[in-house]
Amino acid sequence: MRRMLLVVQYDGTGYHGFQRQCGQMTVQERLEQTLEQVLGEAVTVSAAGRTDAGVHAIGQAVAFTTANPIPVPNLVRALNDALPGDMAVAGAEVVPEAFHPRRDALSKLYSYRILNRELPSPFICRYAWHVTEPLDLELMQAAAEKLLGEHDFAAFCASGSSAKSTVRRLSRLDVTREGDLIEIRAEANGFLYMMVRIMVGTLVEVGLGRLSAEEVGWILAGRDRTRAGPTAPPQGLCLVAVSY
Amino acid sequence: MRRMLLVVQYDGTGYHGFQRQCGQMTVQERLEQTLEQVLGEAVTVSAAGRTDAGVHAIGQAVAFTTANPIPVPNLVRALNDALPGDMAVAGAEVVPEAFHPRRDALSKLYSYRILNRELPSPFICRYAWHVTEPLDLELMQAAAEKLLGEHDFAAFCASGSSAKSTVRRLSRLDVTREGDLIEIRAEANGFLYMMVRIMVGTLVEVGLGRLSAEEVGWILAGRDRTRAGPTAPPQGLCLVAVSY
Repeated sequence: MRRMLLVVQYDGTGYHGFQRQCGQMTVQERLEQTLEQVLGEAVTVSAAGRTDAGVHAIGQAVAFTTANPIPVPNLVRALNDALPGDMAVAGAEVVPEAFHPRRDALSKLYSYRILNRELPSPFICRYAWHVTEPLDLELMQAAAEKLLGEHDFAAFCASGSSAKSTVRRLSRLDVTREGDLIEIRAEANGFLYMMVRIMVGTLVEVGLGRLSAEEVGWILAGRDRTRAGPTAPPQGLCLVAVSY
Repeated sequence: MRRMLLVVQYDGTGYHGFQRQCGQMTVQERLEQTLEQVLGEAVTVSAAGRTDAGVHAIGQAVAFTTANPIPVPNLVRALNDALPGDMAVAGAEVVPEAFHPRRDALSKLYSYRILNRELPSPFICRYAWHVTEPLDLELMQAAAEKLLGEHDFAAFCASGSSAKSTVRRLSRLDVTREGDLIEIRAEANGFLYMMVRIMVGTLVEVGLGRLSAEEVGWILAGRDRTRAGPTAPPQGLCLVAVSY
């Protein structure tokens, strides 16, 4: 038996999130179907991040165990030939038997994109949140700084989370702009349920002038979800990389 | 009555081409439905280029006549609010009553994108042709030069065309590469049915070493469609701009 790690990319638009659920097509189900077809045996995969419906990935980490001795490059080629166009395997390697992609992750990096202009774009709308009112980047950057470091992020965690602790270490929260596109890059040792999207929703409130950077610090300290901003929509979010 | 010109953008993936046809959702039908909803009257639109199923546009030109006196900026805003996410109106203006977007066009510019690497990409696959074998850019550029100028392009016209003459003036056929993406930009005073996609299919044969630049010159001179390369798939093609 070999334990394998795959780097998986997907356009999440057509999937009901990563995790298998009854009666809906998910990334996990499509991937397991394709692995079974290629390996000739049923496998169950674990992922580093259970991305929600409509969320994308260019660096999702997925592990599984197989008895099939197929060489790694052949596996990658066979999977890419068999997967639908909205999914791809960017790499694969053999890992220790006890490896778990979520528990062993040192950090995860997410990107959130916002199209900030009046005109919509048919090509970006699948991959960005369209915010028509002008956002003040400097205010958003000042607010982002308040969230950096190790904190109890309970104010930025949606209900339905099964996390035992709501303490996380946010090592990066960059807000940059290139033309009409604003990108927020968030890196942490782990993220709570909807944490990136609630942080983005809150930073957008700041960019619109409805919240101050100082208030964001108070919201964090207050640990009350109802005081943070709305949850940003899923299509702007992408799991970029998982570090081990 | 006013004659109006719209610049229309669309992701063609979900449409059966531009032109209205029975029982299938087309760009024209969706646009006319939305115009009727916004203007309160039925309108029929004409387009500069009848793009095929799966072909995109960032600068399609569409004209219609209306009795509704709605100010131009309000029309653009109302259309963008009412259109689905895969369509947008980038601009609008009032034009002379006799204006026709195809007949009055001086030139059209198309872009064709090729993802040239082994790994597929879930994000580019909707907007590019995935060619896994390495393409020789210099050979493709040399072949493209053979096609420049005013010629009878019958060898690059699919059957089913209603064009009276197959003579066109190709003023630009650039082949450039940025990383793994090859872009072919074609500009002409008009294009025959499938002309860009047959030119691209032929240039790819050259890039793979299966045809020489010289042979492409002979194919053009021979005016025989069966000697040119295959028709490249639709998703790489985008109507970029129409000049008047």
